[in-house]
Amino acid sequence: MTHNELRKDFLLDRWVVIATERARRPTDFAKQENQDPKLQTGVCPMCSGNEHMTPPAVLIYKNANGQIVKDRDQDGFRHKDWIVRVVPNLFPAFAPPKTEANEEEIMKNDTFGLAVGHHEVLIESPTHDAHPADTEVSQLANVIDAYVDRMREFVEKPYVKYVSVFRNHGQQAGASLTHAHSQLIAMPFVPPIVAAEMRASAEFWRKNRKCVFCSLIEKESAGPRLVHQNSDFVSVTPYASIYPMEFWIVPRKHAINPFGLTRTETYAFAEILRSTLKALKILVNDPPYNYGLHIAFDDEARDYYHWHLEVFPKLAIWAGFEKSTGVFINTIPPETAAAELGRTIES
Amino acid sequence: MTHNELRKDFLLDRWVVIATERARRPTDFAKQENQDPKLQTGVCPMCSGNEHMTPPAVLIYKNANGQIVKDRDQDGFRHKDWIVRVVPNLFPAFAPPKTEANEEEIMKNDTFGLAVGHHEVLIESPTHDAHPADTEVSQLANVIDAYVDRMREFVEKPYVKYVSVFRNHGQQAGASLTHAHSQLIAMPFVPPIVAAEMRASAEFWRKNRKCVFCSLIEKESAGPRLVHQNSDFVSVTPYASIYPMEFWIVPRKHAINPFGLTRTETYAFAEILRSTLKALKILVNDPPYNYGLHIAFDDEARDYYHWHLEVFPKLAIWAGFEKSTGVFINTIPPETAAAELGRTIES
Repeated sequence: MTHNELRKDFLLDRWVVIATERARRPTDFAKQENQDPKLQTGVCPMCSGNEHMTPPAVLIYKNANGQIVKDRDQDGFRHKDWIVRVVPNLFPAFAPPKTEANEEEIMKNDTFGLAVGHHEVLIESPTHDAHPADTEVSQLANVIDAYVDRMREFVEKPYVKYVSVFRNHGQQAGASLTHAHSQLIAMPFVPPIVAAEMRASAEFWRKNRKCVFCSLIEKESAGPRLVHQNSDFVSVTPYASIYPMEFWIVPRKHAINPFGLTRTETYAFAEILRSTLKALKILVNDPPYNYGLHIAFDDEARDYYHWHLEVFPKLAIWAGFEKSTGVFINTIPPETAAAELGRTIES
Repeated sequence: MTHNELRKDFLLDRWVVIATERARRPTDFAKQENQDPKLQTGVCPMCSGNEHMTPPAVLIYKNANGQIVKDRDQDGFRHKDWIVRVVPNLFPAFAPPKTEANEEEIMKNDTFGLAVGHHEVLIESPTHDAHPADTEVSQLANVIDAYVDRMREFVEKPYVKYVSVFRNHGQQAGASLTHAHSQLIAMPFVPPIVAAEMRASAEFWRKNRKCVFCSLIEKESAGPRLVHQNSDFVSVTPYASIYPMEFWIVPRKHAINPFGLTRTETYAFAEILRSTLKALKILVNDPPYNYGLHIAFDDEARDYYHWHLEVFPKLAIWAGFEKSTGVFINTIPPETAAAELGRTIES
């Protein structure tokens, strides 16, 4: 496995992985067809029973007499009867260092010339269509636990500075397989959007001695942009939502990442994730969407950063104006989005 | 006409227009259908003969004995036999101040609370399918002249700080009408992407006493990312292209905007725009794309900023990773894109 090249723009704080691993020729784009093997052949490599179609799992959860047991596949052996399964991505955007020497070289150079890291697929259920809007809260809690397990392993590695956990739903949102799954990308730098959030929240802390997200919860949980709340989480539409129907899920407990979630909190997260995604599904007829965790691992951010999940329904197209200015046009006021999502959850 | 609301994110340098003028209910998104009237009814409001279907033109070009004559419509009167026509957008993202008092208020407050500005549609030809890849160079030169004419008028207004000139081609790139057209949005602030370019190029100038784009031309015009060049313009694929097949067109003459283009330079711009877009069309089967001008109007940027056009083919989907990190994955190395586009132009 060779490494993809990581390039920084000569002017802007903008990074791109030149993915030679899955390099395509321009003419390959001329006919874009659905690549989903389930639609093409009726066989899904993520479904229960097809474990041999993927690399060995780096993590599986099994249900043993009501207890979750964790394990991993060995070469030539694949666990069956799993309830959550994590496998390496066959075409990783970021790939592990090849040797320890390579690892040291990377740390020394600090050039980010190689897209070093990890890229995994988290299969959320043995059942093809068990998407978060419809699945059991307990199963969604397993998915959240597995996110945390993988993140914990990644951040131990010296070359990992950030882990992006995200979900693509629907072909128009970039999901090439329809089976319910998330992805994890461990990468060697804190990416621009999260870095900008960290700088701005550090500045807010310096001025106000307060976490900006804690302030947000205080202010928004009684206002017109509240979607839903429970004992441990709040869902709001951001004041400057850049996507129509965009919403965030923010934990009440101040923390930079979800490592310290209690059992109750994990279930509360699963509950609010399920109910908000279900409302979106009902309201807009199962639209494509993306979600991503925003987290920090650096203990220095402890006071000012606050992890959360951002959900981006794909209901509009960014065109020439958005792409060349970085200014967005949103045709659904976030107050309308919050009211309609909230009403749908309650009905 | 009421104004849309302009909102800045509470954390990031991120702006959004909450477009209440064309506000939609969430359920409107449940069925996204093609809105193109030409496809629905066979009648295109931009085609020659249908001038009464749009507001009065703010600018028309006519061909009078080989000379271009410029004029505008009056209420109740519509010019016929135009070759380029600019009309106000019926659902403007940015709209003019209602009164002079309003205008002063805007200047005083500097809050950017209202999306004040202009939003126009530039109809590039009386012929429905005269897209830049296929049209005459002379007609494309008229389009460029009309961009400049409108920009010149906009920047005279005290509340206009930037003009975004862009083109959406194909429904997947956000073009709701198939007739060849561009758009202009005059806005009350320099947008984040251009502002970031200006900051970074000012910094480059401070360190090197050289324009970063002039350096780029020098370096890239003999390298593997050169697409095409003529007497006055260079087309290159950027080192850190974030879109597959992305390319830029950069003038050799250092200038912050195209106001000073000579006749020869305008034709050279039209020629390189046509040949690169034609190569893209041939190579990838007429893909959707967006392009946008990057320009400055502030004379202070005279030394360090350098106007250019960025072309973004729409061949990939930004998914959860891109949207939550700001890091991009490009499956076509820019060197491959440049070689194939260049080869197609020469063949």
